[in-house]
Amino acid sequence: MTILLAELAVRYGCELHGHPDTEISAVGTLKDAREGEISFLANPGYRKFLATTQASAVILSKELAAECPVACLVAADPYLAYARIAAELHPLPELNAGVHPAAVVSESAVIPSSCEISAGAVLASGVKLGERVSIGPNCVIGENSVVGDDSCLLANVSVYDGCEIGSRCLLHAGVVIGSDGFGIAKSEQGWVKVPQIGAVILGDDVEIGALSTIDRGAIENTVLGNGVKIDNQVQIAHNVTVGDHTAIAAQSGISGSTKVGARCIIGGKAAIAGHIEIADDVYLQGGSGVANSIKDSGIYSSAISVEPVTKWRRIAARLKNIDKIAKRLAALEKRVAKNKNRSD
Amino acid sequence: MTILLAELAVRYGCELHGHPDTEISAVGTLKDAREGEISFLANPGYRKFLATTQASAVILSKELAAECPVACLVAADPYLAYARIAAELHPLPELNAGVHPAAVVSESAVIPSSCEISAGAVLASGVKLGERVSIGPNCVIGENSVVGDDSCLLANVSVYDGCEIGSRCLLHAGVVIGSDGFGIAKSEQGWVKVPQIGAVILGDDVEIGALSTIDRGAIENTVLGNGVKIDNQVQIAHNVTVGDHTAIAAQSGISGSTKVGARCIIGGKAAIAGHIEIADDVYLQGGSGVANSIKDSGIYSSAISVEPVTKWRRIAARLKNIDKIAKRLAALEKRVAKNKNRSD
Amino acid sequence: MTILLAELAVRYGCELHGHPDTEISAVGTLKDAREGEISFLANPGYRKFLATTQASAVILSKELAAECPVACLVAADPYLAYARIAAELHPLPELNAGVHPAAVVSESAVIPSSCEISAGAVLASGVKLGERVSIGPNCVIGENSVVGDDSCLLANVSVYDGCEIGSRCLLHAGVVIGSDGFGIAKSEQGWVKVPQIGAVILGDDVEIGALSTIDRGAIENTVLGNGVKIDNQVQIAHNVTVGDHTAIAAQSGISGSTKVGARCIIGGKAAIAGHIEIADDVYLQGGSGVANSIKDSGIYSSAISVEPVTKWRRIAARLKNIDKIAKRLAALEKRVAKNKNRSD
Repeated sequence: MTILLAELAVRYGCELHGHPDTEISAVGTLKDAREGEISFLANPGYRKFLATTQASAVILSKELAAECPVACLVAADPYLAYARIAAELHPLPELNAGVHPAAVVSESAVIPSSCEISAGAVLASGVKLGERVSIGPNCVIGENSVVGDDSCLLANVSVYDGCEIGSRCLLHAGVVIGSDGFGIAKSEQGWVKVPQIGAVILGDDVEIGALSTIDRGAIENTVLGNGVKIDNQVQIAHNVTVGDHTAIAAQSGISGSTKVGARCIIGGKAAIAGHIEIADDVYLQGGSGVANSIKDSGIYSSAISVEPVTKWRRIAARLKNIDKIAKRLAALEKRVAKNKNRSD
Repeated sequence: MTILLAELAVRYGCELHGHPDTEISAVGTLKDAREGEISFLANPGYRKFLATTQASAVILSKELAAECPVACLVAADPYLAYARIAAELHPLPELNAGVHPAAVVSESAVIPSSCEISAGAVLASGVKLGERVSIGPNCVIGENSVVGDDSCLLANVSVYDGCEIGSRCLLHAGVVIGSDGFGIAKSEQGWVKVPQIGAVILGDDVEIGALSTIDRGAIENTVLGNGVKIDNQVQIAHNVTVGDHTAIAAQSGISGSTKVGARCIIGGKAAIAGHIEIADDVYLQGGSGVANSIKDSGIYSSAISVEPVTKWRRIAARLKNIDKIAKRLAALEKRVAKNKNRSD
Repeated sequence: MTILLAELAVRYGCELHGHPDTEISAVGTLKDAREGEISFLANPGYRKFLATTQASAVILSKELAAECPVACLVAADPYLAYARIAAELHPLPELNAGVHPAAVVSESAVIPSSCEISAGAVLASGVKLGERVSIGPNCVIGENSVVGDDSCLLANVSVYDGCEIGSRCLLHAGVVIGSDGFGIAKSEQGWVKVPQIGAVILGDDVEIGALSTIDRGAIENTVLGNGVKIDNQVQIAHNVTVGDHTAIAAQSGISGSTKVGARCIIGGKAAIAGHIEIADDVYLQGGSGVANSIKDSGIYSSAISVEPVTKWRRIAARLKNIDKIAKRLAALEKRVAKNKNRSD
């Protein structure tokens, strides 16, 4: 596909600098783009590659237009404009509608003819798909689960019974939806399983990264709002609710019954305790732990970055003694105050 | 299914308050239960919903019976009583015994007729199942592995060759049992793989959460005791042993050759080093790291919870200087002592 | 298979102590090996088992040969010699070449007759395998992906389209290669997906542990060098590059666009931020976080090990006040200096 730069400018509301007939057929990085490719500059760390870029055009902010050696599209948010232009230049493959003969679909499943069911997929009784749903190879969908229009499950996804996936959702390979929450009660004879009879409800436009797990609710449901975006290897425990448009980076975990607000950004490997509430618009830095509710929007962190190990060992040892350090300081303050009084 | 409250009281040893003929057909939360549902109150955080509950009955402790506006079952451990009553009200679906035509089962596999082998499951030669085993869609079981009576493997589980799974085990979707331990030896030409020839042995009544991995032993076996309960995305490395009735929450990892005692509770995202021993009855708080053996039962932690990032940056910067702080304090103590001696 | 100890000594360059005709047929641990088994001693923690070992022979270092009660092979690096000898004694099962009738292979896929394609595997159009490739049960390989000679994909692996896997690679169960990177751009209407059009390129001799995920690049590729070894549940984000012979332990995560050097060792559960560079030969201790580039080789850490919770609570509380502690110390230093001046 080839598009003229002028068309892209008009379609995505950018200001065009340079020749309007510049032909664009793909995207490329500032550093390595070749003729016919459009690049973007959003992260200031890559500004150094602008002067020598071989891209045919660059999407960037007003301030940088003057130093761009090639045609450019000036956008209020260059990364957002890039996202939309890239999607136009690199459209998803079209559905190959139909049920593959090596798929196993229950007679009671409702599968519109616009859907693609790939080889090895297993759809249980009562499954109901919307229009143009794509079920990837070797996916398994349990009884009575529902998938909305235009959603796509890639390879090896497992959806347990009774779950609901909204429209335009994208579930990456190996995702598990609706597994049992970790509910166990202690008895004299060991742990007794607490039945997990709730479900998982995913809103519309939800994306879930490879090998993430969303547990079903214990009694009520686990619910992810519209537009929630989840990276790989994230764990969402039973009865969690995640507000609309919250994004959660890889390997984070949210413990049971916690409510995460809307438009939050949870950095990678964050750990959020159970039975707490996170306000809207909270940004958690990667590697942070959250033990208590966060009531105010804002940026939070508890991550500590590395030091050379010999230095770190001293730090860690001193940290273990910080209570003594504080007590010694208090004693010294008292003593100095007394000395002062005496010497007064 | 409908059960009279009086029957539940008798069967689960609870004291009945209210009408014995109250009909119960499902469970519900205190907050949202409707007529015909039984709820429970174990976490004090939910006591506020008791006065207005619409449940037909509530399972709770003696102290709270007086404030319950509806019928109730008084139990020594309300959560445990709830677990058992919920299991009775919401029984697991019955097995649909037989081998699905789209399963691939080796002729030398031993599959009792009471087992259910789902579509897409692949069972290699020498696999041996006990009675009433359920193998979910697209599971793969390697050569000579054994699964005990009444165990259930849900969708997309992978069991390598030569592993043993006990009776009444439940393996959730995407679990991997018997993958190679991370054994590599350095050479001039790069890493040389150390063959992993041990196996994985799971006891009876083990539950393993979605997408958890249990590596096979390097020479001897990796062993999980009876009644061990493991949440999602947990990693158990080669040659680990986990004692009976230990519970491990999501995203925790146990490194190679470590021995974890019995009845431990490992919080989520805990990191346990290799070649150490954790005593029985140790409770690790979520997000903790364990570098050395823990010899005494008790509660341990090293988790730090978030602060607003501007405050946290100061804390982290000071922490990096804690060694200097301690030295300055010691110098000051010396100096004050000297001053005092001088002023005496 | 039985081999004489003398043959092993010659083949692997070890010095033989004891009877050259000692017959070896398997490996065993120092503690539990029986007749016919060879063991090794590399970790000093296991030296206590040497005196009573029932192994027929032990691989160990020169210094320990004298205290070995049985035949031994003296090696410069006993663990490395063990790795090679164990591989000889416990060879991998031979390929069972051919395409299983329950596999689904596109007509346009190139599958040499030396390959083994297991039941339930789904290979899309344009897939190209080298010689003697083994594709495990229920694996899914996307369009135009390439796998080099002698590589092995175990059960339930998902490879997206357009990825390249080198020769002699080993991908464990449930691995996901080529999933979309977590690229999203904020808009007024919520997150807009940034198309991920790069690929994943794995070098030769790469091993990837169970349920690890390697995301495809946003524009350019995500690249793992030759001899890279990755443990279970590791997450490699888009556009990461990992240098040759780097080893990454379980549950670690590397964020987008970061460059990790060659021959690094990344401990378990490490968290590495995006857009940074880690030098060659860096060793990160398990549980460490890396926020900034590491320019010098060496050992780094930020891990804190547990304390009993009552002690830890005091430490954590004091840590939150460390800024005040430092300020009080500075004030006291000033005051003592003034007192001293006054008393001088």
